[in-house]
Amino acid sequence: MNNFSFQMSTNYVFGKDKHKKIGELVKPYADKVLLVYGGGSIKRNGVYDGVTASLKENGVAYIELSGIQANPRYEKVQEGIALLRKENPGLVLAVGGGSVIDTSKAIAMGAATDDVWNFFANGGEPTKVLPVATILTIPAAGSEVSPDAVITYQGRKLGYSSPQIRPVASIVNPEIFMSLPKNQIANGVCDMMSHIFERYFTQTEHTDLIDSLAESTLKTIMRNALILMKDPNNYEAWAEVSLGGSFAHNGFLGCGRIQDWGCHGMEHELSAQDEKVAHGAGLAVLTPTWMRYVYKEKPAMFFQFATNVMDIKPERDIEKTINAGIDKLQQFFVALGQPTSLRELGFNENSPLEEMAKKGAGEGFLGNFKPLYWQDVLAIYKACL
Amino acid sequence: MNNFSFQMSTNYVFGKDKHKKIGELVKPYADKVLLVYGGGSIKRNGVYDGVTASLKENGVAYIELSGIQANPRYEKVQEGIALLRKENPGLVLAVGGGSVIDTSKAIAMGAATDDVWNFFANGGEPTKVLPVATILTIPAAGSEVSPDAVITYQGRKLGYSSPQIRPVASIVNPEIFMSLPKNQIANGVCDMMSHIFERYFTQTEHTDLIDSLAESTLKTIMRNALILMKDPNNYEAWAEVSLGGSFAHNGFLGCGRIQDWGCHGMEHELSAQDEKVAHGAGLAVLTPTWMRYVYKEKPAMFFQFATNVMDIKPERDIEKTINAGIDKLQQFFVALGQPTSLRELGFNENSPLEEMAKKGAGEGFLGNFKPLYWQDVLAIYKACL
Repeated sequence: MNNFSFQMSTNYVFGKDKHKKIGELVKPYADKVLLVYGGGSIKRNGVYDGVTASLKENGVAYIELSGIQANPRYEKVQEGIALLRKENPGLVLAVGGGSVIDTSKAIAMGAATDDVWNFFANGGEPTKVLPVATILTIPAAGSEVSPDAVITYQGRKLGYSSPQIRPVASIVNPEIFMSLPKNQIANGVCDMMSHIFERYFTQTEHTDLIDSLAESTLKTIMRNALILMKDPNNYEAWAEVSLGGSFAHNGFLGCGRIQDWGCHGMEHELSAQDEKVAHGAGLAVLTPTWMRYVYKEKPAMFFQFATNVMDIKPERDIEKTINAGIDKLQQFFVALGQPTSLRELGFNENSPLEEMAKKGAGEGFLGNFKPLYWQDVLAIYKACL
Repeated sequence: MNNFSFQMSTNYVFGKDKHKKIGELVKPYADKVLLVYGGGSIKRNGVYDGVTASLKENGVAYIELSGIQANPRYEKVQEGIALLRKENPGLVLAVGGGSVIDTSKAIAMGAATDDVWNFFANGGEPTKVLPVATILTIPAAGSEVSPDAVITYQGRKLGYSSPQIRPVASIVNPEIFMSLPKNQIANGVCDMMSHIFERYFTQTEHTDLIDSLAESTLKTIMRNALILMKDPNNYEAWAEVSLGGSFAHNGFLGCGRIQDWGCHGMEHELSAQDEKVAHGAGLAVLTPTWMRYVYKEKPAMFFQFATNVMDIKPERDIEKTINAGIDKLQQFFVALGQPTSLRELGFNENSPLEEMAKKGAGEGFLGNFKPLYWQDVLAIYKACL
């Protein structure tokens, strides 16, 4: 186990009706908040009314920024920062999924500067960041508990990470997820599973506890995801999946080990190339192929995955066991309605795969389990066609 | 799953040499700290020197309070509070196990009042609490990440809980644990396992994720504890056990469920009666008997324990499977060198068991899985003789 430090300071508030308590949670931070959300779904399902009523009840004024879309764009961040200057709220309240939360984090970073993109492009810490609170409407990205944000600008999709942008409070109410369409359930599940895979597959030795917690979380998410595909209004299944999605990305499952993040890096190029590509769908296509491409670097890790996560009965033929595990994972993604090829996502032989691979890997490489140079990324893209 | 909220704000710093970084961690909070520790072990193993050198290096002055013993007493807390008045430190730094940390938390509660015992006896929140930081020297109590403290005074052993006393930073360096004697390893392991049992055994339904995380943590602790009994200097096994001990008690494994805490309540009366009784040894005796006494309230929960934690092959005869699981747990405690009866801890037919049972259960009951009235507690004590 490697040395590490871990701090997960978000006040995580979970359960029925909890979004109606948001006023109490944000009041200690601000008398006025910037309320950020996507489209009209929170107005249709009553969340908007519950949230604004609670803010009013607690004497918290609010201004609004709406229209945040998937793969969130920097232009919306700039719009939000302009609102900060004009209206001077004390907290940014995100009501939405990962895109809304990431946009809100980036806006919060603009408390004392207009050039937030500079931190995404070059790193560093803003001198002042507003507190961010969230009400989750799509369990997937884990941004409700993470110190990360991903923003797209000028054809680049870049991530930024700092404890300063970890939400001070997040509300997760599984009732809110009941109206989600099945493709969003599936994409969310693939994203949260990938957050665990990116941490789980490691060359670091002696990682017993975190390994087994990761395996338990993966199995719980998978079992309950299949329940949701048949019964999307099952509160208890949503509770397991959404809590699992938060635990997948709060950082604990990455403690004491070198993490990978190769699949996320490869996927970002897919949705940067075509923003209609859902992050979860891209991951569902790439992950099994990545596994087949890299497992020989440390077969024991994938043998463990096959037996402990996918419940493959171990055989003397280690490769057979490993491949059975990967096949079963892919079957699971298919059961969620996910594609198995890049072709289904609109790519083909004429797509600029080499250019994408070079952009993804840059001068160096993606991932750590097996370093993926651009030639490796291209080979994986091609194998996914 | 029940509604819950969870916030684990401790900056948890883990790994080799980390205690030598304590000065950097406390400096943002204070220029002067009260350094609290037990006996001479931290002087013999070099921890004291590493800690004080780091404090000096970072310009942090320190005053000392030493001589904290197991089952910590309020008199030491009062001594510490007198030092606060005289010396005015900005933080209490505990270097020790649960007793030292709990004493430090209670002292920190005395920032603005001399009557800290009042909070243990009657609840409520102090108006001011100093920040507490810890360097763990015995993995067991989980106090390094918990909002709890237990103090003994005038024959009463009482607990107090508040987010205000959760440490702001805790250092866990498995190298420090290598000099621990085997009975302390065993007692620590039994305590941390009990922290999980107290949360795991519940009547709450639909608790998949937390159940499986608890099971994984228990199995990891048990597997690595047996390694330590043969090889107490195994860094990697200590890393798993100590991280498991912190995760056992940081609160996450209690999310969304009614918790029990019956065994802890019964054990507190044992060590209140005779302070030579180690908490972990008392729990090792009580827990299997408690399990046999209560499992009929919900056999499915104990069937799950037997198969998922103790790896008993499930049989059609549910009771047989359950009892095999409990037996195997008791064999594990024996393998750690723990007693199986209260007699081995110095109790017998002439001990005031009825009085202890009545003190433990009070007017009401202990525990929640099955409410234990004083007659139940007495029956369990007698079955343990």
